[in-house]
Amino acid sequence: MSDPWQECMDFCLDVTKRAGKMIREALQKDITIMQKSSPVDLVTETDHKVEQLIISSLKEKYPTHSFIGEESVAAGAPSILTDNPTWIIDPIDGTTNFVHRFPFVSVSIGFTVKKEIEFGIVYSCIEDKMYTAQRGKGAFCNGVPIKVSGQEDISRSLVLTEMGFRKEPEHFHMMLANIKTILTIPVHGIRSPGSAAINMCLVASGSADAYYHMGIHCWDMAGGAAIVTEAGGVIMDISGGPFDLMSRRLIVASSRTIAERIAKEITEFPVGRDDTEGR
Amino acid sequence: MSDPWQECMDFCLDVTKRAGKMIREALQKDITIMQKSSPVDLVTETDHKVEQLIISSLKEKYPTHSFIGEESVAAGAPSILTDNPTWIIDPIDGTTNFVHRFPFVSVSIGFTVKKEIEFGIVYSCIEDKMYTAQRGKGAFCNGVPIKVSGQEDISRSLVLTEMGFRKEPEHFHMMLANIKTILTIPVHGIRSPGSAAINMCLVASGSADAYYHMGIHCWDMAGGAAIVTEAGGVIMDISGGPFDLMSRRLIVASSRTIAERIAKEITEFPVGRDDTEGR
Repeated sequence: MSDPWQECMDFCLDVTKRAGKMIREALQKDITIMQKSSPVDLVTETDHKVEQLIISSLKEKYPTHSFIGEESVAAGAPSILTDNPTWIIDPIDGTTNFVHRFPFVSVSIGFTVKKEIEFGIVYSCIEDKMYTAQRGKGAFCNGVPIKVSGQEDISRSLVLTEMGFRKEPEHFHMMLANIKTILTIPVHGIRSPGSAAINMCLVASGSADAYYHMGIHCWDMAGGAAIVTEAGGVIMDISGGPFDLMSRRLIVASSRTIAERIAKEITEFPVGRDDTEGR
Repeated sequence: MSDPWQECMDFCLDVTKRAGKMIREALQKDITIMQKSSPVDLVTETDHKVEQLIISSLKEKYPTHSFIGEESVAAGAPSILTDNPTWIIDPIDGTTNFVHRFPFVSVSIGFTVKKEIEFGIVYSCIEDKMYTAQRGKGAFCNGVPIKVSGQEDISRSLVLTEMGFRKEPEHFHMMLANIKTILTIPVHGIRSPGSAAINMCLVASGSADAYYHMGIHCWDMAGGAAIVTEAGGVIMDISGGPFDLMSRRLIVASSRTIAERIAKEITEFPVGRDDTEGR
């Protein structure tokens, strides 16, 4: 039987390429920065324009589908995942990187049906790497199959995470304590590239062995989740339980052994949920 | 008057390209990892081969020059900077990244005469970015002039540093405390790409606003120091005093204001010197 969502995937790939081109062109120009709520939380004109391009293209083609996008949610749109075919969109994943022209900036799109991810696309547009995955069909970078490293030994692992400033001193302290705990195992190293979606693709392609994060959103995770799963990786909740797209937290790893070890080592702190939190 | 070291620079550029090609080819193959002293401190066969290629080519051409290279120093060669023309070589900067195929891996070469850096070359060989700078002649990436962001406001800065596991618990604690201090200023973010030489080039090209590090070596800094200086950046010691190539520590920044603020905020811990430390 042919994949009923193949046409959506193909159309999305085309839209993503156009979005990536728009981002690259914007990086050639001077950037007018608008601030959302703090210096750490930046949004640019381009972010809005790229989301507009993506959502208007997809809505025109698929008017009955649902949409969850970073920028529209910030503007007050709800963020509830239903059984309806749903596009979960981050127009620029790594907005701070984008503002600084730091070379990890991506477009991330995940597509769910009955709350299950059917496919994901992450386009690292400065590197020009198009990561794609459809359920049951493997993961690819620029059309070439990718797979996780398969590493089982955490002491030989390169681990990704991000360090954000947090308003709650206790959570800030826990975030840093977790980094200390992981470094002390010890691991080969920790890297912080600054784009959740690209971090997931780096694990998917074997360039890193694990990535964990608390406080991100469904649009940071949906595209990458498909890619890392199809590349043979493991995705789970920070607690070690099943991954929950709306939970704002995840561990991805090259093996269950490493994912479970990270779940065991790190301390959870409350980050709310995408589908209940007041915004 | 023509630059007496132009020929050295041109020859070095050719050798660097060949070294980069060797690294890229090695990344296609399986890697046999040899351990130096700990899981964090890896060295590969390729590291040795690339340094051999670079040093034997340069020594044949310039038999009276001096050489300081990461691998030869690890093998017991001295690391004293003299007035003699001296090549300071890191065959693979970002060895851990190399082992994991994490995409920031570089060849870094600096050339000093009378202890002053005359030129520097950093080749980010997965990205295929060749950064070059000669004293008084500006800095370039693939032949295109680059300059620092010029950012003066630390709260709008993207800051680079690296998190290594340290055997001394007190130093490890200080390293993490410094990260906490910088994040709390707050800054836009901290990124850890894992290659000192590339970090310096990211500041030089305006993709980040500052980079600080304690515990690195002269071969991690020599090439990048020329590039960041010629790109209009500031380089200084962690203390806020003049940069010292053999001191194993540095701050580079887009402006003096930011460099001095970082010097003021962070706590020093002893890391020894390249030219006195027993190895």
